[in-house]
Amino acid sequence: MRFISQASSDGVTEQLFTLGEIPGVLWTPDGAAGSRPLILMGHGGGQHKKAPGVVAHARRFVAECDFAVVAVDVPGHGDRPEDEEYNRIATENQARAEAGEELAPLIAGFQALVARQTVPEWQAVLDAVQRLEHVGAGPVGYWGVSLGCGLGVPFVAAEPRVRAAVLGLGGAVASAEEAARITVPVEFLVQWDDERVPRAASLALFDALSSAEKTLHANPGKHAEVPLFELDSSLRFFTRHLS
Amino acid sequence: MRFISQASSDGVTEQLFTLGEIPGVLWTPDGAAGSRPLILMGHGGGQHKKAPGVVAHARRFVAECDFAVVAVDVPGHGDRPEDEEYNRIATENQARAEAGEELAPLIAGFQALVARQTVPEWQAVLDAVQRLEHVGAGPVGYWGVSLGCGLGVPFVAAEPRVRAAVLGLGGAVASAEEAARITVPVEFLVQWDDERVPRAASLALFDALSSAEKTLHANPGKHAEVPLFELDSSLRFFTRHLS
Repeated sequence: MRFISQASSDGVTEQLFTLGEIPGVLWTPDGAAGSRPLILMGHGGGQHKKAPGVVAHARRFVAECDFAVVAVDVPGHGDRPEDEEYNRIATENQARAEAGEELAPLIAGFQALVARQTVPEWQAVLDAVQRLEHVGAGPVGYWGVSLGCGLGVPFVAAEPRVRAAVLGLGGAVASAEEAARITVPVEFLVQWDDERVPRAASLALFDALSSAEKTLHANPGKHAEVPLFELDSSLRFFTRHLS
Repeated sequence: MRFISQASSDGVTEQLFTLGEIPGVLWTPDGAAGSRPLILMGHGGGQHKKAPGVVAHARRFVAECDFAVVAVDVPGHGDRPEDEEYNRIATENQARAEAGEELAPLIAGFQALVARQTVPEWQAVLDAVQRLEHVGAGPVGYWGVSLGCGLGVPFVAAEPRVRAAVLGLGGAVASAEEAARITVPVEFLVQWDDERVPRAASLALFDALSSAEKTLHANPGKHAEVPLFELDSSLRFFTRHLS
């Protein structure tokens, strides 16, 4: 793990790093010492580790909960090089969608493929970050919607350190089996008028989770229009389960 | 409005009253003076104004938000006499359900009938309570699930003083038209495994609300198993919209 830069504002320290080929960012409270809860955040499709939505959540988790937050670029996103195989499949999928094939299963299949790479990458990130003195081996949460849900479901299913997860804006097509292996508390976001994820697929993914405590929060609006008060709710959800 | 008794514990004053034939209870902060937000709570079927769920919510709204809370017995419930006409219809409905008729529309039809009486009763209660010096004419919220939703939807639709409502555990059968007249923020509770309200009917009622801000909170479990953390959420919801 190699640190590249460090900056601080409003009580939050931001450290850019690379772990092998993975570019990442770690947010911690200024002057943090000792172990604390850690949230791993998965960004959306076409976004990156410092997308505005990720940063807004991360800074509040750190400033208000005293947590650490880490986010890394998904392959083919942010500071990572384009991936030829992923590009080829994406181009193929686009052609199949244009030829009339249903889009949701194509996206889900693609996310399942990428997850085979990101699950071990994110586990390595947890290993590395939890060895830092100002993060430590506290309880871990996961936050990710849209692509961050498609990759997050297999990650949360595979990683026993994760004790609570905020997921959503994703459907059941490919991940129902992995969702059934999730037993930790989940807060699940649904946009009621989502133009990308069919409502029935969202509800089916929520249904598939084996968690005894799971809450679905549905709000009117399109895929990208999650209301701001859901950030408050995520914050309280993680406080309840990780503090 | 005639006060019958007054008691205080843990900073909350409880006053029993009657307004004409309507028995009610008013909770306010000890020593309250001046106007404050007011929550009207509708109890569930077979329950009454001081059912444990109502009291638990009311005491927290008062103690933590400095609100006033009022609840009254629905006709045929609590300290009110049995209502012959309602009894006759309920008996008829039971016979029709036993003969194979679908239960949900029968319940919805019955609730719509009772609402014709409770809407003006609850409006009179608001009038009376808001004239009290320690309540005043602040913003009003409504909280009611199950029967409290069946009677609450027409009440919230009819009463412009209500600025925000927590509803749920109810379906769309009879109240979709009135739900479409509701435009204030709504937090809507759904029990994912509700044995009394079909899931599709719940989702349809949420759908029917015209509110620009409405949030559906769905949790696993049966009709009566709403998790405790939803009380926290109701509290924050009313704080956001009434304070």
